[in-house]
Amino acid sequence: MRITRNWLDHAEGSVLVEFGRTRVLCAASFTEGVPRWLKGKGTGWVTAEYAMLPRATNTRSDRESVKGRIGGRTHEISRLIGRSLRAVIDTKALGENTIVLDCDVLQADGGTRTAAITGAFVALADAIEHARAEGLIAKKAQPLIGSVAAVSVGIVGGRAVLDLDYPEDSTAETDMNVVMTGDGRFIEVQGTAEGEPFDRDLLGQLLDLATKGCSDLTERQRAALAEGVAQ
Amino acid sequence: MRITRNWLDHAEGSVLVEFGRTRVLCAASFTEGVPRWLKGKGTGWVTAEYAMLPRATNTRSDRESVKGRIGGRTHEISRLIGRSLRAVIDTKALGENTIVLDCDVLQADGGTRTAAITGAFVALADAIEHARAEGLIAKKAQPLIGSVAAVSVGIVGGRAVLDLDYPEDSTAETDMNVVMTGDGRFIEVQGTAEGEPFDRDLLGQLLDLATKGCSDLTERQRAALAEGVAQ
Amino acid sequence: MRITRNWLDHAEGSVLVEFGRTRVLCAASFTEGVPRWLKGKGTGWVTAEYAMLPRATNTRSDRESVKGRIGGRTHEISRLIGRSLRAVIDTKALGENTIVLDCDVLQADGGTRTAAITGAFVALADAIEHARAEGLIAKKAQPLIGSVAAVSVGIVGGRAVLDLDYPEDSTAETDMNVVMTGDGRFIEVQGTAEGEPFDRDLLGQLLDLATKGCSDLTERQRAALAEGVAQ
Amino acid sequence: MRITRNWLDHAEGSVLVEFGRTRVLCAASFTEGVPRWLKGKGTGWVTAEYAMLPRATNTRSDRESVKGRIGGRTHEISRLIGRSLRAVIDTKALGENTIVLDCDVLQADGGTRTAAITGAFVALADAIEHARAEGLIAKKAQPLIGSVAAVSVGIVGGRAVLDLDYPEDSTAETDMNVVMTGDGRFIEVQGTAEGEPFDRDLLGQLLDLATKGCSDLTERQRAALAEGVAQ
Amino acid sequence: MRITRNWLDHAEGSVLVEFGRTRVLCAASFTEGVPRWLKGKGTGWVTAEYAMLPRATNTRSDRESVKGRIGGRTHEISRLIGRSLRAVIDTKALGENTIVLDCDVLQADGGTRTAAITGAFVALADAIEHARAEGLIAKKAQPLIGSVAAVSVGIVGGRAVLDLDYPEDSTAETDMNVVMTGDGRFIEVQGTAEGEPFDRDLLGQLLDLATKGCSDLTERQRAALAEGVAQ
Amino acid sequence: MRITRNWLDHAEGSVLVEFGRTRVLCAASFTEGVPRWLKGKGTGWVTAEYAMLPRATNTRSDRESVKGRIGGRTHEISRLIGRSLRAVIDTKALGENTIVLDCDVLQADGGTRTAAITGAFVALADAIEHARAEGLIAKKAQPLIGSVAAVSVGIVGGRAVLDLDYPEDSTAETDMNVVMTGDGRFIEVQGTAEGEPFDRDLLGQLLDLATKGCSDLTERQRAALAEGVAQ
Repeated sequence: MRITRNWLDHAEGSVLVEFGRTRVLCAASFTEGVPRWLKGKGTGWVTAEYAMLPRATNTRSDRESVKGRIGGRTHEISRLIGRSLRAVIDTKALGENTIVLDCDVLQADGGTRTAAITGAFVALADAIEHARAEGLIAKKAQPLIGSVAAVSVGIVGGRAVLDLDYPEDSTAETDMNVVMTGDGRFIEVQGTAEGEPFDRDLLGQLLDLATKGCSDLTERQRAALAEGVAQ
Repeated sequence: MRITRNWLDHAEGSVLVEFGRTRVLCAASFTEGVPRWLKGKGTGWVTAEYAMLPRATNTRSDRESVKGRIGGRTHEISRLIGRSLRAVIDTKALGENTIVLDCDVLQADGGTRTAAITGAFVALADAIEHARAEGLIAKKAQPLIGSVAAVSVGIVGGRAVLDLDYPEDSTAETDMNVVMTGDGRFIEVQGTAEGEPFDRDLLGQLLDLATKGCSDLTERQRAALAEGVAQ
Repeated sequence: MRITRNWLDHAEGSVLVEFGRTRVLCAASFTEGVPRWLKGKGTGWVTAEYAMLPRATNTRSDRESVKGRIGGRTHEISRLIGRSLRAVIDTKALGENTIVLDCDVLQADGGTRTAAITGAFVALADAIEHARAEGLIAKKAQPLIGSVAAVSVGIVGGRAVLDLDYPEDSTAETDMNVVMTGDGRFIEVQGTAEGEPFDRDLLGQLLDLATKGCSDLTERQRAALAEGVAQ
Repeated sequence: MRITRNWLDHAEGSVLVEFGRTRVLCAASFTEGVPRWLKGKGTGWVTAEYAMLPRATNTRSDRESVKGRIGGRTHEISRLIGRSLRAVIDTKALGENTIVLDCDVLQADGGTRTAAITGAFVALADAIEHARAEGLIAKKAQPLIGSVAAVSVGIVGGRAVLDLDYPEDSTAETDMNVVMTGDGRFIEVQGTAEGEPFDRDLLGQLLDLATKGCSDLTERQRAALAEGVAQ
Repeated sequence: MRITRNWLDHAEGSVLVEFGRTRVLCAASFTEGVPRWLKGKGTGWVTAEYAMLPRATNTRSDRESVKGRIGGRTHEISRLIGRSLRAVIDTKALGENTIVLDCDVLQADGGTRTAAITGAFVALADAIEHARAEGLIAKKAQPLIGSVAAVSVGIVGGRAVLDLDYPEDSTAETDMNVVMTGDGRFIEVQGTAEGEPFDRDLLGQLLDLATKGCSDLTERQRAALAEGVAQ
Repeated sequence: MRITRNWLDHAEGSVLVEFGRTRVLCAASFTEGVPRWLKGKGTGWVTAEYAMLPRATNTRSDRESVKGRIGGRTHEISRLIGRSLRAVIDTKALGENTIVLDCDVLQADGGTRTAAITGAFVALADAIEHARAEGLIAKKAQPLIGSVAAVSVGIVGGRAVLDLDYPEDSTAETDMNVVMTGDGRFIEVQGTAEGEPFDRDLLGQLLDLATKGCSDLTERQRAALAEGVAQ
């Protein structure tokens, strides 16, 4: 697992996150102003858009722009990333500003949504730091009230497993995405029995594994953010 | 909570399910044949489409047909309903047939997706019985290998609560949808911290409450299905 | 034929209208303000949207939201309903307010568009009464300057027939929709020879039958509106 | 009123029809084969598409291709033209062939839909003659079993008037389109009270006027078709 | 080659341009105001939209409005026409006004984009003259700072050829569109080797031929514009 | 300028091409079969799709998938890349196989389309080599009959300049893209006067510069392809 900050020159924050063969480019764009439905309320907005390049996967898939519509899976993941990041944002402190996180999967081998959340958090932190440095938000305001990391866990052959790659993922009996704060609380728990329904005990094992995994990722994020950056 | 079977005259199975002021019309359509990507594999398909009438809610919302695109929320819920029902279907036993569950929310007051799953299961059971009676699937085949019910639980004012209505739902700190089989195992667990992240202990309380709620709904479904029906 | 007022809890006016097996849910939504092209003219707007649930019919049809576009038939009927209702509205008296009539066909067995017009009128009357009661429009203003009802008539086996159900409708040689005011004048006459063209004499018979049918429906509407309503 | 046959070089039939300042280009395209839902039934299909150039009207309107969707009015008129022409077609005699009538309004000054029908009939007749000459349909088969013409009539200032131009049309109290066969029977009658509802007597006057108008147009069509054409 | 001015009654400028069997109707619409991104800059805007009627070609093609999206070729040509015309417009002198050139191909036989540019220039000149006559732009302002004409040239059988018609065009080894000002300078040069790549020498021959061709067209445009016009 | 081959693990050919700050990821996907309109002709197909990530540019732009339609610029460039590559492909030798080149701009600083062509050629060569190694096309068949490279040249301050970066590009008086084969012939020449029209002499200077630039790129491509690759 590798986090490369400032992979892009233009974005206010950007991270190339690599999890095994999965590679996601997360770009944070800071803009002044908020969507119309939030105007005049003194609060900011953080949102996300997830997409996959056509040849990120083993066989090429059609572009959603060419099909003229966004699929359900894309919508679902974009919403998940947005919700996850907003959980650690104080929108009052952000002021009437918007940060959009673009998470584009350059190569996919399982766990793209959790990699996207984990990487996007770092890009978000950089974008906020950039905005404070530029005076776009008050120096003493701190919109970032925590950190976020995510893992996928699953049941393969009856056993709880962390970080499924694509072959595991597609054969897993249960696939669960867990998003946690840096202090070990849950933001999102989303588990689906693809095959056999699961019982409370297995669910407990999955949550234990996820808690451990998120805690490790939180360390990696801290380490990456601790390095000095000349943007 | 009320389940009215055969609310429609044409559909192979249909249920009007009412949960407080929430009313969802679930219609099961049985058709021979399967989508192209399943052809020749000898297995059937069950899928769902969820939608809301424009004035189901307190203020009117625009039709997705008029906007020309389906929103992320609609996609997300349609996929959830389809996954939940497929968990209790033996697609081999179904043969190369398709059942589509249309879940249209006539009136919404919280918990529409869980009401839809709970009602759709009954419509699905009726459609399968109809198909067996008509000889569309073999009499001895039993595609239905279990039952499914769903509840929403949430944390309101720091306490776990069952069946949130709309005012509760929109102020809940955490909102969780739980889909379970009739024998008490989990098909889907999907919890989101809208406000404060939640810890393992609260999560446990939510799951307890959900288990109890799904068990009650399972009883209601059984009772409804036990009544003789002259279709 | 049955008119059930206030079938919905949220809408300003709502009617479930049943004509044989045809069931249409008509919801009237009153909102302040008008579309952009009417702003500042001191007049209101009444419009309608018609749609069919996918399993309203004998075989399931695809959702227009999924197809991403509204079909010609839907457009045509929505426009007809809107025009018919505007014929009995004094838009000046309505002020700069908009009423949208959503007519959703829950089950179809012929005559859905005429049932929709007949039911929508009652929902419209309730919405206006509600707006006056709430002071959204002046108590002494009366935007409703008449009543509207509609029937379908046709030629089946060479004879003029009232209220075609689906089997008749699909075999009718001529199908005509007639919209009339409560005082017996025509708002819309729309007749199409599906098979043999028709002559002036048969047209006369169709109009006689329609006049009688609309007059009966007007009575039913009056009776329904005369009942006290505790909304 | 002027009918110019063979205005195009490629189309199997084509007519530029001019009614006052209204100019509609009608092109009939004959192709072998039918839409999927008609395959193998031994019958043909005739359909129409109506559209307006952006600057056909007094002020420019946006292209429907740019907007990405076809409006209700366009749909409505396309369907009307198609229905009207099919009324004089024996689809069995046509065999499994399709004729598409493209009616593009180059300039509009009222009555575009009725001009389109009247012109399209002539283009259709030419396309059928062409197909017989080319042996695409049997020489002894005659798919054309009658002729079709259409007029618009209306009530302006309380009086019935034939052939409304745009200023009359937009102020008419009632606007009615009447489509008739060459032998004086009705194919379509579509009248709408834009202002005051109309009574049976005025309706009778409109129909008298329309009958006379269609009869004149039928003569014009015959004269145009009687001229020898070297395509 | 024939240029007919004022082919339409409503448009501020309109030209039917005929090049062999190719016929393009060019309509210039002058409106006050500019697109949002230009507001308040004191400059005007000239843009173009190109389209083909479905039966302009030898076999019918589907309407882009029906398909719900504009194809790449249409986009490409619309952009080319707009760029070409803007090259001879002083947008400051135009003031905050917009001129849209609609170029609709009524019949196609090669060279539709170059015919469109050549005709659209004349329609543009007429629209500007109209706007000055009406006082919509200052009498002493002259937004038109030159003239534009365009030809297509190509290599057929190894030889450079001017004005390819459709059979030549579709077999040409290289197809080049050249847009020039009336004083012999280049606005756009766009050449594509469909078959064999071409060398610098052949490119030179193509440019010579194009220069001569544009010069001839410039003469025709001048002659057409010199005729007195009673609009 | 840097070419990194095999940047992706799944694609049959892939290149990350960097030109200054411009970075384009080119992925070549080889699939058996051809589009419907080519079936049974014994020839293959090569096509391309170009897109930009939302934050490739200095300010974020909306995703075309979210807008639901592809813009004219994207269409134009995709078509240019496809045409350019097909110029060096012997489609007979390719057999009934398709290669799609996805060119996704990760970061943009001018010259993205020419970088895409130059990089896509290398990915295409690798995909063909892969297909031969896998026996998907005959070992002795050689679909690649030449090489392709592209540069942008322009006139800045009256002087011809090679490889415009974004600030130059947006102020250039003329912007020209030139695509050439490895043996120095032209595949595409596309020059547009953004400001002042240009004369034949300046055009000659641009072509000289482009010829030199393409020749240098051809060397780079050869060097990159000469390196042994363990895919």
